[in-house]
Amino acid sequence: MTAEPPSAFAYLGPAGTYHDEAARAFAKRLGIDDPQLIECPSLSEVFDCVDRGKCEYGVVATENALEGPVTATLDNFAFRSSATILGEHVLDIHHCLIMHPEATLNDVKTVASHPQGLAQCRRYLNDNLHGIPTVTVASTADSARRAASDKSVAGIGNDFAAQLYGARVAETGIEDHFGNQTSFALIGRQGHVPVLTGSKFKTSLALFLQADRPGALLMILSEFAYAGINLVKIQSRPTKQALGDYMFFVDIEGSTQDLEVQTALNCLRLKLREVKVLGSYPVE
Amino acid sequence: MTAEPPSAFAYLGPAGTYHDEAARAFAKRLGIDDPQLIECPSLSEVFDCVDRGKCEYGVVATENALEGPVTATLDNFAFRSSATILGEHVLDIHHCLIMHPEATLNDVKTVASHPQGLAQCRRYLNDNLHGIPTVTVASTADSARRAASDKSVAGIGNDFAAQLYGARVAETGIEDHFGNQTSFALIGRQGHVPVLTGSKFKTSLALFLQADRPGALLMILSEFAYAGINLVKIQSRPTKQALGDYMFFVDIEGSTQDLEVQTALNCLRLKLREVKVLGSYPVE
Repeated sequence: MTAEPPSAFAYLGPAGTYHDEAARAFAKRLGIDDPQLIECPSLSEVFDCVDRGKCEYGVVATENALEGPVTATLDNFAFRSSATILGEHVLDIHHCLIMHPEATLNDVKTVASHPQGLAQCRRYLNDNLHGIPTVTVASTADSARRAASDKSVAGIGNDFAAQLYGARVAETGIEDHFGNQTSFALIGRQGHVPVLTGSKFKTSLALFLQADRPGALLMILSEFAYAGINLVKIQSRPTKQALGDYMFFVDIEGSTQDLEVQTALNCLRLKLREVKVLGSYPVE
Repeated sequence: MTAEPPSAFAYLGPAGTYHDEAARAFAKRLGIDDPQLIECPSLSEVFDCVDRGKCEYGVVATENALEGPVTATLDNFAFRSSATILGEHVLDIHHCLIMHPEATLNDVKTVASHPQGLAQCRRYLNDNLHGIPTVTVASTADSARRAASDKSVAGIGNDFAAQLYGARVAETGIEDHFGNQTSFALIGRQGHVPVLTGSKFKTSLALFLQADRPGALLMILSEFAYAGINLVKIQSRPTKQALGDYMFFVDIEGSTQDLEVQTALNCLRLKLREVKVLGSYPVE
């Protein structure tokens, strides 16, 4: 009998990222008070940690309301990993201007953040730090860490990172679009028992077509329509074989425990190259 | 009568990018021997140049075989610009290791490139420059420029950029996936007369749904199927209003000059919030 993998959470680090926040939220929902959190340098390594049983759970961003799907996550689900989605968590994204505790706006010579942090606060930077050069760093947490140690650097990230690294939040809610959100998936090893309950379920699928065949997507949507299953989301991704060759990610309402979902998936299995069930989990 | 905009090409600079290569390819197809090329710092500014009549043409990447759609381009088409697609060009992407003319591999202390250049040559870097730190720069052309002036920096980009900046191509075809391609669109101001001819046409559309309505995508695909129109591509993008709220980019075979295309689009106009025709242009 092999040892159970420790009930730790692998997430895209460093400490203080939005991934870190999401991992703590999942731990709370699982009733784990003092979760063991394992920083990973890339999303692929979060998947590897879970697939190899090094961590029981992984937390990966799947989609941002402004930027769209997180393609590195989708590619891992489609082409690399056998992990199962156990749950989802939607995080409100509020960027803060983060500064050294003793710095004022006049001290700022550079604004450092993740490219998306900079892009999502363009209007604020233009109005308040006009002409100040921006530099990209690997994460919003890194930008908080740099701001905490250098008066001439302002960062953009969440207030959690600012606190963690001992920096000051000079202003909150500096994002251009109000209402920005990121959706995260809790993943476990293939076959992991469900850990979250709910009244409504969702099932995520990766569908691989037979060599480019006209009408395939229409057929897929018709199967779900006939079964009375609502689509939550559909997203195409290149298969990386040739330009214009796609596979589809589809989220449907319902669980693989439901008879109508089973029937629709069995019909699709007869016609498609592969139907990969990424997981059935409660809608948040 | 206003002056005609100069027949210049706006592209995502600096000189030596893959955009630059694509702009030259379009100019050649238009029979322009010595094209005036205008560098822009962002894709949005390429669109602005065209929309404001500062340049007659713009060149924007639409999709890469590995990375998928270029979201900044799609968002400009959907939400900002009224430009028309006049043509497409598919460029084979072959990355080179670019070095100072007098440097050898032993001199290299850093590998600098655009994040996609680095990501697409990961295996080569691991096998040949293992442990050498990588830094990201704004473009593959920038990486060639840096390599040309610093023996300790190796860049990753096209041989065109290496030549342009006086650097040396140390190795060609260093990309992990052979057969990588990027598709570019030639854009002109709304209503621009067609400039390229061909036997087969393609039409690009941006479709905006009425507030989230189940079955909308099935209805869209059914309209095209009934009209006997093949779909080339479909891509969803967030509307940036709320997580899970999408619009669709659809490429279909045929031209808006074709009766069956006109009928299908008129049917869709009766049901959707907006049908934006991005252009009809010859298939390359």
